[in-house]
Amino acid sequence: MQPQKIKKYLRIYRDGLLKDNIPFWQERAPDRKCGGFFTFLDRTGAVYGTDKPVWIMGRAAWLFARLYNAVEKRREWLKLAEGGIDFLEKHCFDSDGRMFFMVTRSGKPLRKRQYLFSETFCAIAFAEYAIASGRAEYAARAENLFRLILRYHNTPGLLKSKTRPGTRRMKGHSMPMILLATAQVLRRAGDKDIYRETIDDTVFQLERHFLKPEFNALLESVGPRGEFLDEPAGRVINPGHAIETSWFLMEEARFRSDKKLLALALKILDWSLEWGWDHKYGGIFYYRDCRNRPCEQYEHDMKLWWPHNEAIYATLLAHFLTGDTKYATWHARIHAWAYRRFPDRKYGEWFGYLHRDGTVSSTCKGNAWKGMFHVPRMLLNCWKLLEEAAADKAVNPHFTRFACEMRPLGFDAP
Amino acid sequence: MQPQKIKKYLRIYRDGLLKDNIPFWQERAPDRKCGGFFTFLDRTGAVYGTDKPVWIMGRAAWLFARLYNAVEKRREWLKLAEGGIDFLEKHCFDSDGRMFFMVTRSGKPLRKRQYLFSETFCAIAFAEYAIASGRAEYAARAENLFRLILRYHNTPGLLKSKTRPGTRRMKGHSMPMILLATAQVLRRAGDKDIYRETIDDTVFQLERHFLKPEFNALLESVGPRGEFLDEPAGRVINPGHAIETSWFLMEEARFRSDKKLLALALKILDWSLEWGWDHKYGGIFYYRDCRNRPCEQYEHDMKLWWPHNEAIYATLLAHFLTGDTKYATWHARIHAWAYRRFPDRKYGEWFGYLHRDGTVSSTCKGNAWKGMFHVPRMLLNCWKLLEEAAADKAVNPHFTRFACEMRPLGFDAP
Repeated sequence: MQPQKIKKYLRIYRDGLLKDNIPFWQERAPDRKCGGFFTFLDRTGAVYGTDKPVWIMGRAAWLFARLYNAVEKRREWLKLAEGGIDFLEKHCFDSDGRMFFMVTRSGKPLRKRQYLFSETFCAIAFAEYAIASGRAEYAARAENLFRLILRYHNTPGLLKSKTRPGTRRMKGHSMPMILLATAQVLRRAGDKDIYRETIDDTVFQLERHFLKPEFNALLESVGPRGEFLDEPAGRVINPGHAIETSWFLMEEARFRSDKKLLALALKILDWSLEWGWDHKYGGIFYYRDCRNRPCEQYEHDMKLWWPHNEAIYATLLAHFLTGDTKYATWHARIHAWAYRRFPDRKYGEWFGYLHRDGTVSSTCKGNAWKGMFHVPRMLLNCWKLLEEAAADKAVNPHFTRFACEMRPLGFDAP
Repeated sequence: MQPQKIKKYLRIYRDGLLKDNIPFWQERAPDRKCGGFFTFLDRTGAVYGTDKPVWIMGRAAWLFARLYNAVEKRREWLKLAEGGIDFLEKHCFDSDGRMFFMVTRSGKPLRKRQYLFSETFCAIAFAEYAIASGRAEYAARAENLFRLILRYHNTPGLLKSKTRPGTRRMKGHSMPMILLATAQVLRRAGDKDIYRETIDDTVFQLERHFLKPEFNALLESVGPRGEFLDEPAGRVINPGHAIETSWFLMEEARFRSDKKLLALALKILDWSLEWGWDHKYGGIFYYRDCRNRPCEQYEHDMKLWWPHNEAIYATLLAHFLTGDTKYATWHARIHAWAYRRFPDRKYGEWFGYLHRDGTVSSTCKGNAWKGMFHVPRMLLNCWKLLEEAAADKAVNPHFTRFACEMRPLGFDAP
C-alpha cells in the first residue's frame, strides 16, 4: 500500500473514531441517572428505548477502557468505563454467578439466556478496565468469569435447555470464536495457561470441526465432533462472523509468529469473502447456505454494518501481514462500498441495516444488537494498524516481514 | 361489486387453489416413507430440508380435511388428512400432553417451546378431521386439547420460562387471536359453552387491552390488563396479524349477527390497513412502531406473503358484509399488488419473502413458517365467499343485508 493511501485511510479511521463515532455515543449513551448506557438511539441520537442489554453494557465499558488504554488517558473515558463496570456488577449478575441478557433501565432483570455472551463481554470489560485502572482485582474477576464461562460451556447438561430434548446435538461457531477473542483480551491483563489452552482448543475446533473444505466454507453449526448436518440449520454460513474469526486468528498468528496459523486464518478469510460478497449489488451478505439452497433467515440478503466492519479490518490486516495486494484490493472494495452507504452524513455514526441493494432499511443507530462496538473497534484497530504501517514503511516498503519481526498484538500492553 | 368482477375474482381464487396451490403441495409435501409432510420446498418444489415443524403438520392435516369438507369429497384428501393426524398422534406429543415444536423427519423430538401454537394447529386438524371422517372421537380430542391449551395458558407459572425473571409481565396478541380462531373451527365439529366463553373473553381482551385508540392501532404486546409499555417491544404493530384478527372477528360477528362486533372488527381492519400500507412502494409492511420510532425486527419493512393473504380475504369479506365500496377498493389494490409480485409464474405457488420494493428476497416456497396454509386458506375463503355473493347477487344487487339474513360461517357444517 502506498504511503499516501496509508495516510488517507489512517485519517479516515482516526477521525471517524474521534470526531464522529465516540462523540455520538459519549454525549448520548451514558445514563446519568441510573448508570449504564442507553443503546436504543434513533437516527438523530434520541433515546427510543431504555432497556439495557447486558452485552452492550459490557462492550461499552470495554470500549471506554480500551480508548483510555490505546488512544489517550482521558479521565472521562476511565470514568465512563468505571460507570459501566459499576452497573454490570450491581445489576447484571444472577445469584448463580451467571449474567442476565437484558435488564430494565434501573437494572431489574428482564431476561436470562442459555448462552454465555453477556459473560464474555463483561469479562473483556473487567480485563480492559484492570489495565486502565491498574486495579489487579479486575484482572482476577475477568479470569474468574472466564473460568465460569468455561465451566458452563464444558459441563454437559449445565446449560441444557429443557426445550431441546437432545435428539440432535449441535455446537455453534460463536462459542470457539468468542472464547478465542475473550482469551486474547484477558491475556493482555495478565497471561495465564488457561488462555493459551483455550485458544489452542478453539483453533483445533475451528480447523477440524467447523471448516469444511468440501464447501470452501466455515459453517456456523456442526455436530459435537464436526459432523455435517445436511439441513438448513447445518448449512448456514455467516460470512461476517467467519471473517471476524479470521482476524482473531490473524492476530493470534502474529502474536505467536505462527505461519501455519496465519495460513488457516487467510483460508477462512478468502473463502468467506467469496461466499459473502454480493456480485450483483456489492456488499457482504448476512447469511448463505453452503449448498446454495434457500436460507431460513428473513434477513439473509441484507447488508449489516458489522460484517463490513470486520471485513475492512480483516482485509487490511491480511494485507499488512502478507504484503499481498489482493487483500489491499479487497479492502479498498469493501471500504468504498461501505463508506458510500453506511455513514449518516446528516447526524453522524453509521446506519446498521441496509437492504440487499444498499438502500437503508432501518435508520436506528443503536438497538439491542448494535451499540458502541463494531464500528469504533474497527476504526481503532485500522487506525492503529495503519500507524504501525506508516512507521514501518520508512524502512520496509513491502512490510512482509511476518514471522520475523512482528510484534505481539498489544499495542499498549501494560 | 359488479357480477363480472365477482366472476373474475372467483375464477382466480378457485383456479389458484385447485390448479396451482394444492397440486404444488400435494405432489411434493407428503412424506411417503416416514409420514407427515415436507415443508422445506425450494422454488421448484424440491425438498431442501426434512425436519418437520409441528405447526405445519397440524395446518396441513387441517387443510386436507378442510378441502374434503368444503370443496369435494376426494378420497385422497381424506387420506392425506389421516396421514397428518397419524403423524401428529404418533410423534408430536410429549408425555405431559403438550406438543413439540419441531421433530425430525422420522418424528424424533427436536424442540419444544413455551407457547401453545403446535397445540392449537393440531386441535383444528382434529376437529376438521372429525367432520370429514365422521369420527366423533376426534371432536372430543380436539376439545380435550383445547382445554389443555386453556389450562396451560391460564395457570400462572405453568408455562413460565425460567429465563424471564418476571420483572415485566406482558401478554401477546397472538394468544387471544389464535384462541378465537381455534374455537371457531372446533365449534363446527360440535358446539360447546367453552368455545363461546373463550371467544367472549378474547373479544374482551382484544377490545379492552390490545386496541389503543390513542394510536389508532392494535398492539402486539401489552401488560396483563392492557398496560401500554413505552419500549420498542411494547410499541410493536403487526398489521397483517391485526388484519387476520379482524376477519376472525368479522366471521364471528356474522355468526352471531352482532353489529357491534362487526364495528370492532372493521375498526381494527381500517386502522391496520392504514398502519400497514406502504405508500411509497405499495404492499403491507411486516412491523411498525406505534410512535413511528425504529423497529427492532430486521424484516420490519419486508413484504411477506401472509399479511397479503389475510388482507385480501379481510377486505373482500368486509365489502360483502357492509356493501361499502371502500373495502372493494382496498381489496382490488391489495390483490393487484400481491398478484403482480408473489405468484411464481414459472414453478407455481407464491414466493413468501419480498423486499420492501417488491423484489424477491427468498425464492423458497416453504420453510418452518411458510407451508400449505395462508395461501390456500385465503384462496378457499375468497372463492367460497364469492360463490355466496354470486348466488345472492341474483336477488340482491347490494348484498348489504348484514344482521338479518346472514348465515353462520360453516358453509359445510355437518
